[in-house]
Amino acid sequence: MDTLIQPRVLKGFRDFLPAAEIQRDDLMEKITSVYRSFGFVPIDTPVLEYTDILLRKSNGETEKQVFRFQDNGGRDVAMRFDLTVPFARFTAEHQAELYFPFKRYHLAKVWRGEKPQAGRYREFIQCDVDTVGSDSAAADFEILNLMRTALAAIGVENITIRMNHRGIFNRFLAQLGVGEKSEDVLRSVDKLAKVGSDEVQNELTEITGSAESAARISSYVTCETDFNTTLAKLEDMAGGPSDDTQRMRDIYAMMQASGIEASYVLDPSITRGLDYYTGVVYETFLNDLPSIGSVCSGGRYDNLAGLYMKDKVPGVGASIGLDRLIAGLEQLGLTQKKGSYLDAEIFCLDAKNAAAYQKAAALLRNEGIAVEVFPEPKKINAQYTVTDAKAVPWGIFITDEDAVNGTMSLKKLATREITDGLTAKKTAELIRSNKK
Amino acid sequence: MDTLIQPRVLKGFRDFLPAAEIQRDDLMEKITSVYRSFGFVPIDTPVLEYTDILLRKSNGETEKQVFRFQDNGGRDVAMRFDLTVPFARFTAEHQAELYFPFKRYHLAKVWRGEKPQAGRYREFIQCDVDTVGSDSAAADFEILNLMRTALAAIGVENITIRMNHRGIFNRFLAQLGVGEKSEDVLRSVDKLAKVGSDEVQNELTEITGSAESAARISSYVTCETDFNTTLAKLEDMAGGPSDDTQRMRDIYAMMQASGIEASYVLDPSITRGLDYYTGVVYETFLNDLPSIGSVCSGGRYDNLAGLYMKDKVPGVGASIGLDRLIAGLEQLGLTQKKGSYLDAEIFCLDAKNAAAYQKAAALLRNEGIAVEVFPEPKKINAQYTVTDAKAVPWGIFITDEDAVNGTMSLKKLATREITDGLTAKKTAELIRSNKK
Repeated sequence: MDTLIQPRVLKGFRDFLPAAEIQRDDLMEKITSVYRSFGFVPIDTPVLEYTDILLRKSNGETEKQVFRFQDNGGRDVAMRFDLTVPFARFTAEHQAELYFPFKRYHLAKVWRGEKPQAGRYREFIQCDVDTVGSDSAAADFEILNLMRTALAAIGVENITIRMNHRGIFNRFLAQLGVGEKSEDVLRSVDKLAKVGSDEVQNELTEITGSAESAARISSYVTCETDFNTTLAKLEDMAGGPSDDTQRMRDIYAMMQASGIEASYVLDPSITRGLDYYTGVVYETFLNDLPSIGSVCSGGRYDNLAGLYMKDKVPGVGASIGLDRLIAGLEQLGLTQKKGSYLDAEIFCLDAKNAAAYQKAAALLRNEGIAVEVFPEPKKINAQYTVTDAKAVPWGIFITDEDAVNGTMSLKKLATREITDGLTAKKTAELIRSNKK
Repeated sequence: MDTLIQPRVLKGFRDFLPAAEIQRDDLMEKITSVYRSFGFVPIDTPVLEYTDILLRKSNGETEKQVFRFQDNGGRDVAMRFDLTVPFARFTAEHQAELYFPFKRYHLAKVWRGEKPQAGRYREFIQCDVDTVGSDSAAADFEILNLMRTALAAIGVENITIRMNHRGIFNRFLAQLGVGEKSEDVLRSVDKLAKVGSDEVQNELTEITGSAESAARISSYVTCETDFNTTLAKLEDMAGGPSDDTQRMRDIYAMMQASGIEASYVLDPSITRGLDYYTGVVYETFLNDLPSIGSVCSGGRYDNLAGLYMKDKVPGVGASIGLDRLIAGLEQLGLTQKKGSYLDAEIFCLDAKNAAAYQKAAALLRNEGIAVEVFPEPKKINAQYTVTDAKAVPWGIFITDEDAVNGTMSLKKLATREITDGLTAKKTAELIRSNKK
């Protein structure tokens, strides 16, 4: 006999057992359903791409983390580390086959060789949504609305979406005479929540060379009492009204018309680290667990596919970090784990009635009932072990007499209440009426 | 400016544009829904695994095809080339956390560096279903029934599932005195459909060293008029009744009880090339396009996870080859491509009414209508280009007056029939009533 191989997964990778996978599928299905109801359409791209396509614009950090190798044909290939770069490549490659604005969703795995730690995995799922080919405020608003709606659909309603506009910020920095330092300033402000205002103040003084400028920036990034008051301050500090502030007013008007404005805060300290954002940016926090960080974020960029084509394609998008969100839901006790999708189990009392069990199952499935037949006459407690693990609500017993008559008894497994002498139709009705 | 990178995918890999991806998702959702209704539950495993775990049992062909590399930590890793080996590893690793019989489904991508050719890809999706921990005829029947039901759910009803039992075949070969040559014989018979009976006859004569034995085998693998007649012949040639023939009778009785026996043929020439099958095996053919080959196949094995654990776990499973199936459906004109999941488009006539459009969209979505707002006041023909591409059935127009009154007009885009002065509620009712 061969020696055994120790079964094990790679560090940072995970198996999903049924209850966890059902939960993850359930969240993804609900998110997908919302994306679809807003007119977004799915695409798919390969997990493996040419490395030069994936890595061209990234910084050294990404390069170190990517799973990269030579394939059997000697090509330098890599596994995708996000869904944005493949989407940029896709848009350039299929430009002539697409229509614009083009709204796509993509829920899929990505891989990064990060140091495994709590909540960080080397294989994880991103839930991306982007609208490209429109520079309108309506497209910005739609993504902001979609984030809130998608989270509400999975039961996460107590959230705050903190939004900002990098264009207004840059106008303000230009006014202040530190426009060329905007990247450093943004990066510093981005750390506000993590390191506190004193340290950011010091850093900003160093960057701008002036404590007064640093103080002005600190004043700029402070939230006022409400959206409009904050916006008025930003507009004032940035040198007056312009397209960018008008866009924020238009977005806010659409929020009010949709009755959802209470979920959004204009927070000038939100900058998003990534350089490619150029307009509105946002992050989403669970009000009951802000410490976990943003569970959904995104923003507007002015040139998605510039590495691969000459035309400029502006866009706006967001991504739900599913793993972090699930971790948050678990901490908040908001997860519901279920063991299967079954309504009922037909127990096996005697193998000689196997055909009668299958006949009953066929009739019940025709009535829309999800049912399985226990395949062999094990002791009833062994059969209950399975229905417990799968959280099956109903049990069905078919005796010799039932097998002859085409009847069955139905047992509510939680209460042990039994109704007997039922036809399949009647059984299905009882199960359905108890579902509502 | 940077020079442009030519956007392109690797040979054998594919992008899926929305219509193709919607079609694939639709098929996978329907298949999944059937798997669930039979009590199967989902699991997930990593795309990357230790190479020694994936490749231990495979032959040299697989080894050449696998995407294998050293990760940044120096580990020898590979991308999964099927879903069966990871499931075996999973079962061994989580044995104590599972219950048995354990019924899992897994629809996911796998990778093989095959020579790209028509219908062969290096990245493709498998739709696997397996029951492990039960050696019963009921578990065999359930998978056979499931294959038929899953294909029916995606509109493929005109099929034949050809089944056989390797155990009976082996008993027959032992009777014939060529039991030790069973693998070669099975492999030769497996080529019957491809190379024809003369060539197989010659090969069998060579293998068995006897033209008479070859003739007996050819007689054995011929289908008789019906299931029972064929089974009686096999039983007779294999030396009489035994557990294996009784199992076939039990399975057939369950098919008859479920009223599905017409879809199944007992075909003694079906052997399935893979060595790990030990019992019932089957392949599924489209009656209108048999030339495309089997679109769904599987069988029973007596020891799934033997490489990774001491306990024997018998099982039975099947896999739908989604890409081949889609290719077949396309050839048969059975595919329906749709451009989006939308019911309606709110056209943008004037950006100043953007908030009114969003309000109408919010009201319609509350009524369960999938609707998008065109984000900017492009020429109406440009807007129709998008609704055409997305195959949106309904258009909604909101004039300045409508914006004040909270009304809209609804246009059936195919017939250009317009109803105006509608509330959102009334609009939703009209759309819903036309869906039925």
